[in-house]
Amino acid sequence: MIRFDRVAVIGVGLIGGSFALALKQARLCGHVVGIGRSAANLALAKDMGIVDSVATQAGDADLILVATPVAQFASVLAAIAPRLKPGAIVTDAGSTKRDVVAAARAALGARISRFVPAHPIAGAEQSGAAAASAELFRGRRVVLAPLPENSPESLQAVEAAWAACGARVSRMSPEEHDAVFAAVSHLPHLLAYALVHEFAGRDNSAQLFGYAAGGFRDFTRIASSHPEMWRDICVANREPLLAELERYAGKLRALRALLERGDGAALEKLFAEARAARERWLSGEVE
Amino acid sequence: MIRFDRVAVIGVGLIGGSFALALKQARLCGHVVGIGRSAANLALAKDMGIVDSVATQAGDADLILVATPVAQFASVLAAIAPRLKPGAIVTDAGSTKRDVVAAARAALGARISRFVPAHPIAGAEQSGAAAASAELFRGRRVVLAPLPENSPESLQAVEAAWAACGARVSRMSPEEHDAVFAAVSHLPHLLAYALVHEFAGRDNSAQLFGYAAGGFRDFTRIASSHPEMWRDICVANREPLLAELERYAGKLRALRALLERGDGAALEKLFAEARAARERWLSGEVE
Repeated sequence: MIRFDRVAVIGVGLIGGSFALALKQARLCGHVVGIGRSAANLALAKDMGIVDSVATQAGDADLILVATPVAQFASVLAAIAPRLKPGAIVTDAGSTKRDVVAAARAALGARISRFVPAHPIAGAEQSGAAAASAELFRGRRVVLAPLPENSPESLQAVEAAWAACGARVSRMSPEEHDAVFAAVSHLPHLLAYALVHEFAGRDNSAQLFGYAAGGFRDFTRIASSHPEMWRDICVANREPLLAELERYAGKLRALRALLERGDGAALEKLFAEARAARERWLSGEVE
Repeated sequence: MIRFDRVAVIGVGLIGGSFALALKQARLCGHVVGIGRSAANLALAKDMGIVDSVATQAGDADLILVATPVAQFASVLAAIAPRLKPGAIVTDAGSTKRDVVAAARAALGARISRFVPAHPIAGAEQSGAAAASAELFRGRRVVLAPLPENSPESLQAVEAAWAACGARVSRMSPEEHDAVFAAVSHLPHLLAYALVHEFAGRDNSAQLFGYAAGGFRDFTRIASSHPEMWRDICVANREPLLAELERYAGKLRALRALLERGDGAALEKLFAEARAARERWLSGEVE
């Protein structure tokens, strides 16, 4: 069984903190070092037993998780590159993968073989160490986006770590990952932000929000997501996201045509097909 | 205090059934007659004590609630018009108001003064008498869309009935109602149906749904709404809905421009403004 004597978590927030707690619970790691920008958050992480010590360097860690906002990856990876212990493995929790891989290649050079890109699919409405939980990843998906340079051993080690957190681990290329998540995650966030912003800017916005109900609340829940994080995701993944936005705009044009000619039968068919697809998904038939 | 000796509910589903239960609980009504298409549903409503009897005519009711799908209003109102008791009041629970008013004017003629249009804003993911609850409308909004012909007494009676259900009653013109709900309700439904349908039709739809998570689930919850009901709403309210769709498409074009030039600062500003507006709404500052 794989075990990591020393684990370094860079960015001890919801994701990084939960990863540390889950590895500890699974008895897969020894000492956990926490590294981050906020001294207060790190002190809290130590008080909560998420990390065993606080440092400014990953030092002699066997496994390093980079769980900062994606825009910081270049500087974070550049800082750890020169001190990487032989055999140490680096992984990440970024929501996009092509940009992360590019940043890692630039920062790590020949050491890129030690970097195994990953993306845990876990909610991020709460943030900070205070929100961390050893159970966060149980039953959730984690996508590994392996590089040609990765050794089978490093892949297995990262896969074992996430599996020990209770996650369902699968693999995709960085390109496939970014295309899939542009569709099922990044586009809906953009659409929800757009709708709330559209209403907020109107003269009668108080009236509109006054009559918005539960359907609107759920539809726009992801518009309460972290603006800085979603800025980074949208900019990093803009080509696939633009492609999705274009396809969706085409769908709306088709719907507009149905509305314009009052084609109730075609509208009902589309609504029924969408509902059926969603019900199949919820029932677990689609996986 | 206003009291209705005999109440007729046409369409004893979630809304109609809950209205009857709430009036009974508030001791605002005597006998409740249930009328509807499904004998099984009416039998269930009688077993559950929602209605006291089942009939095919509203008969000598003092208050009649039309709570069928909106597309049936013309025939329903034509059927009750010739037998309307002097002083009887008719109201409805339709999600659109201009078309309902037009149908009522055509069917009721001079009796239009007795028809007080209303729209209770209550979720409709469940349906049928089985889902009815005396508490459904507590704290929810009900919009009255009064007609110039309505007497103050008939308006007060309908307002008192909904207030007795625990609802917060307000008034708008039918035109204003349809414009507001095209924005805050009908458009989000259309957008959610469109997104699910877009993914369902792709070659890799199983993969896309396989990686869709909690954000997607909430965003698309309203795409599980009833296709027939939403067909009727979209067709009935298509002009305001088309106007909203056009404004939203314009917003998406503006977002596309920001993405194309990689304007992270402008994206973050828009996301932050949207999040702040939503948080103000959730905290009850917008009302």
